[in-house]
Amino acid sequence: MKSYRKELWFQVPTRRAFINITGDVEQCLAESGIREGLVLVNAMHITASVFINDDESGLHHDYEKWLEKLAPHEPVSQYRHNVGEDNADAHMKRQIMGREVVVAVTGGRLDFGTWERIFYGEFDGRRKKRVLVKIIGE
Amino acid sequence: MKSYRKELWFQVPTRRAFINITGDVEQCLAESGIREGLVLVNAMHITASVFINDDESGLHHDYEKWLEKLAPHEPVSQYRHNVGEDNADAHMKRQIMGREVVVAVTGGRLDFGTWERIFYGEFDGRRKKRVLVKIIGE
Amino acid sequence: MKSYRKELWFQVPTRRAFINITGDVEQCLAESGIREGLVLVNAMHITASVFINDDESGLHHDYEKWLEKLAPHEPVSQYRHNVGEDNADAHMKRQIMGREVVVAVTGGRLDFGTWERIFYGEFDGRRKKRVLVKIIGE
Repeated sequence: MKSYRKELWFQVPTRRAFINITGDVEQCLAESGIREGLVLVNAMHITASVFINDDESGLHHDYEKWLEKLAPHEPVSQYRHNVGEDNADAHMKRQIMGREVVVAVTGGRLDFGTWERIFYGEFDGRRKKRVLVKIIGE
Repeated sequence: MKSYRKELWFQVPTRRAFINITGDVEQCLAESGIREGLVLVNAMHITASVFINDDESGLHHDYEKWLEKLAPHEPVSQYRHNVGEDNADAHMKRQIMGREVVVAVTGGRLDFGTWERIFYGEFDGRRKKRVLVKIIGE
Repeated sequence: MKSYRKELWFQVPTRRAFINITGDVEQCLAESGIREGLVLVNAMHITASVFINDDESGLHHDYEKWLEKLAPHEPVSQYRHNVGEDNADAHMKRQIMGREVVVAVTGGRLDFGTWERIFYGEFDGRRKKRVLVKIIGE
């Protein structure tokens, strides 16, 4: 069994953003030399997500609006977590969008459907944060 | 390490449905000959889910109603994604229900609790779509 | 390839609770002797979750309140699943928080960000329930 590990680093200038990291994960897979196995891609921070969906700006706008409706940022005082913090909503948004994805590796490639793309979802940006790519297989 | 791959295909006649695919995944596992490892089962489309819950029709009705409340299909004009599309809500419902499940394989069987069953959740049906089953182990 | 399996058992006296199980999973990993691989930690019951977030009591209070707003327990008659049951809401809360987490193992340790902790989320307690820890690797 082979294994591979890499951290991807981000510093998003806004509070929230969705970043397509499919190319970065593909590069990790190429570096690993693994042809059959599983890739784990996970946020290493509890106010961010890794998820798979469409790379379409209208949809991302809809997600932003929808998540804000389900878990509003303001008033920050509505959350008990927000004592010296203002990111309780980010912990909730991240649960809906998910911490991680596991993707099959087949023939040395991400085994994806036509529109599947991997995203880093930031819900409390403006500081350095990272994503882990771990690959196991042969 | 052994690996196994299969696609399961669906054409759901309605917009939304939940289909129990536990038997299909068990058959994949038997075909793979793998006795210890992990099974990944994931939707290959971004408007569908794979999730684990109860095979109970009342609950499925409740899920349908609940998901429609959290991410309504109509009015379709409320979503910026719906330019020539009407499935923005399906992308949201799929995030709540999840893209994938990872299940342990022990002694050649799905290592499940009493009521655990694997479902394909369709939120934008009436066309051909597929699920990936990838198994790694020994 | 090595593999390891253990069940963690819980009997939560209240309907709902969040329990930090990071130490239990670390002990499983030490027992497994696996240094590179993946850990799967999943609820074996469909009204409970395993998720990763912050060990902060204010946040847990916020999660409780938020989940109750998105999927209220009462009136129990609003759910078709609640025929002889009163836990339909627990099946929904568990979908939002997730069934499972997959965590990388690097150098014999859980490969975690600073604040990442693994939780068992109970949404229908007062009976014996369990979590599966499955580890594969080398």
